Amino acid sequence: MSALNTDLYELTMAAGYFVERKTDEIATFELSVRRLPEARNFLVAAGLAQAVEYLRELKFQPEEIEYLRGLAQFKQTPPEFFDFLAKLRFTGDLFALPEGTPVFANEPIAIVRAPLVEAQLVETYLLSTFMFQTMVASKAARCVLAAEGRPIVEFGSRRAHSSGAGVLAGRAAFVGGCSGTSNAEAGMRFDIPVFGTAAHSWTMAFGDEERSFRALQKLLGESTVFLIDTYDTIEGAHLAAQMGQPIWGVRIDSGDLAESARQVRRILDDAGLREAKIFATNDLDEYRVAEFVKAGAPLDAFGVGTQLAVSADAPALSAVYKMVELKRDGGVYYTAKFSSDKITLPGAKQVYRCADRDVVAHYSECPDKYLGEPLVRPIIAQGELIEALPSLTSIQKRSLAMIAALPERLQQLERAQPYQVEMSPHLQAMAQSVREEMQPAK
Amino acid sequence: MSALNTDLYELTMAAGYFVERKTDEIATFELSVRRLPEARNFLVAAGLAQAVEYLRELKFQPEEIEYLRGLAQFKQTPPEFFDFLAKLRFTGDLFALPEGTPVFANEPIAIVRAPLVEAQLVETYLLSTFMFQTMVASKAARCVLAAEGRPIVEFGSRRAHSSGAGVLAGRAAFVGGCSGTSNAEAGMRFDIPVFGTAAHSWTMAFGDEERSFRALQKLLGESTVFLIDTYDTIEGAHLAAQMGQPIWGVRIDSGDLAESARQVRRILDDAGLREAKIFATNDLDEYRVAEFVKAGAPLDAFGVGTQLAVSADAPALSAVYKMVELKRDGGVYYTAKFSSDKITLPGAKQVYRCADRDVVAHYSECPDKYLGEPLVRPIIAQGELIEALPSLTSIQKRSLAMIAALPERLQQLERAQPYQVEMSPHLQAMAQSVREEMQPAK
Repeated sequence: MSALNTDLYELTMAAGYFVERKTDEIATFELSVRRLPEARNFLVAAGLAQAVEYLRELKFQPEEIEYLRGLAQFKQTPPEFFDFLAKLRFTGDLFALPEGTPVFANEPIAIVRAPLVEAQLVETYLLSTFMFQTMVASKAARCVLAAEGRPIVEFGSRRAHSSGAGVLAGRAAFVGGCSGTSNAEAGMRFDIPVFGTAAHSWTMAFGDEERSFRALQKLLGESTVFLIDTYDTIEGAHLAAQMGQPIWGVRIDSGDLAESARQVRRILDDAGLREAKIFATNDLDEYRVAEFVKAGAPLDAFGVGTQLAVSADAPALSAVYKMVELKRDGGVYYTAKFSSDKITLPGAKQVYRCADRDVVAHYSECPDKYLGEPLVRPIIAQGELIEALPSLTSIQKRSLAMIAALPERLQQLERAQPYQVEMSPHLQAMAQSVREEMQPAK
Repeated sequence: MSALNTDLYELTMAAGYFVERKTDEIATFELSVRRLPEARNFLVAAGLAQAVEYLRELKFQPEEIEYLRGLAQFKQTPPEFFDFLAKLRFTGDLFALPEGTPVFANEPIAIVRAPLVEAQLVETYLLSTFMFQTMVASKAARCVLAAEGRPIVEFGSRRAHSSGAGVLAGRAAFVGGCSGTSNAEAGMRFDIPVFGTAAHSWTMAFGDEERSFRALQKLLGESTVFLIDTYDTIEGAHLAAQMGQPIWGVRIDSGDLAESARQVRRILDDAGLREAKIFATNDLDEYRVAEFVKAGAPLDAFGVGTQLAVSADAPALSAVYKMVELKRDGGVYYTAKFSSDKITLPGAKQVYRCADRDVVAHYSECPDKYLGEPLVRPIIAQGELIEALPSLTSIQKRSLAMIAALPERLQQLERAQPYQVEMSPHLQAMAQSVREEMQPAK
């Protein structure tokens, strides 16, 4: 986690704020999503733990500062700026939705209030961190809903956007309700259950399927999952049936999974292996899982890889990090953007989850007005963590409970009538007054 | 780079190979893409430098081994396996396409030949590393082709799948022909030109556009790029014109970019700023860039973000890592997979780029037969790098030259008649003979 891991313009702006003596101004930035992707009825907030880690460790290394000094963009920057950078730490506040909270467009996922330079510098890192995990957690939640109680395991490390993304995808998928991941590092770092037994190459390395199955069973005992489709799924199933106990189940990774599963189920049952599970993989997503469940295919668990780890049908969120307030010379200035297709509302916000809708209000409004649970919570105050973050298990519990409490229509895979998110009258009035004061007048 | 950053099944298989005394067998695995995505006429190989770094540093930490010991899957594993893991390093060979090489479906991007456990263990990391960078380099190449000589800068860090992916996206985009990146860490680590000046928040922090422009110009001099659309693009352009020299140009990030650019061009020209550039951003991709170029819009350079950094229209490649040969007891066994929808061909391969097609042949075939350049090169031998890897600048040069040498139709954005990739007669005969010998007989 390098402080240099940011867009260059965050650093040129930092230099400018330093030169213009704006380093004491306190800015508030809000991180939110402009629109939900087509195929999402809600998102699941995730990534807060990594954002917190980053903010608490934010620091430039001497060689990073040397690098910046040498860039053309800093040719005219006074040397004092680089001393300032060397001492820079995050001393501000962070407010955020707890991980696992379902969230909608234009609701703050995180709010940073800090000296202008700090608040600006962290934009790039916070956006990619919150957005990637939120995206994967949201996709995972859909897979979990589609599976109607059958376990979903995240299997996508190999297709993730770099090995580091694979580890974080395992974490985010767990936040969204997955039962575990294939990624061993994610398992260790985040204390997530890990799954996986053998690949086709295992069978190929023995040349002989029967020998490979016998070796696997000896190795894994009750955890044994025979991958039965290296040569022929039905013959593989007969062989697995013949191996008998101990066995957890079999995995099918190609062909017509539903049809194969029916035949394989019969073969296992006929051999008295009624408890043996059938685990399905092969380019699955929530739609295919839902089809299998609807068709009553005897598939007991699913490994979802690529589609989950890269959120393939929505591989990016329209996430933004916008300045909404600026404290300067004892006054508070509310800021907003009204350019044609990119509007933001002024002021730091709170979200109230009411019975049938959310209300987004200015944080200073009286909470009693909205009869809903305030969702945005203080996480870091003046650079210090306010309280330990919850465990991933309790995050997942929160996530599953809050998703189950959403209106029924949002829990379907099909695009539903959007959840109602209202901007409070006070917030609308603030926006209007900022617009009127704005330079240049329009 | 943790050795634990892999799918758990690579580790259970490793334990199995250890128990079955198969650790001296030498396996060859091939990394390739099964199909090109719909909107790609070629891919650009990338990621080799990171793969090499990983292989040379591969090592388990004591705490990682402790973690594995505690997993249910390793309950029955003899303790000697964990001593073996602690000593494990990569001692094998790596062959690969040099970075920047255009590559097609079913051609090896990388080949690993190593003791079975090592070759298997590295699968997950190598797949995600090669595939992510190859994906981004390929998308970048399309943007660069579309721009017909105008510079493209990679601007997608904030939407990348984690902050680490953002850094690597900057690198991969440069391999594909981009002029630089906004990511400062990528700039430092990989010696790539970095770009970026100011965001909308810069203007908002001053409250007054004119003051913000003056401060920017003082800071950046000839590097100054005014972002002119915070309030109103045309008024912003007039203000930029009024600021005069020094200026590099202006950036427009919203609205109808082509139409705005025409008006802005006139305003700048009328002020005598004919040399000032117009830089466009706002959810661009190769299609939008091509439209602007075709329409003659006076846009001089483009920042491409989200669509490039996540390769949004093809956010994953159908990449596989398959065992193709196994040396055991002095004999070589060729392996392949013929299950319904997932076929692989046996044997380690070479790719010959001939005048109008590629020929994929077994590596032992005489190169003179194919009258083409052999593309796969030895990179690591017995764990040691054979020669220093080329600089990113020379990689980019190679990439641009080889793309320019592809048939004209492949250099278009539209899906073209696929490039011809032939499997050599020898390779086909090998596949047939493996199929006939395969267990169980079909």
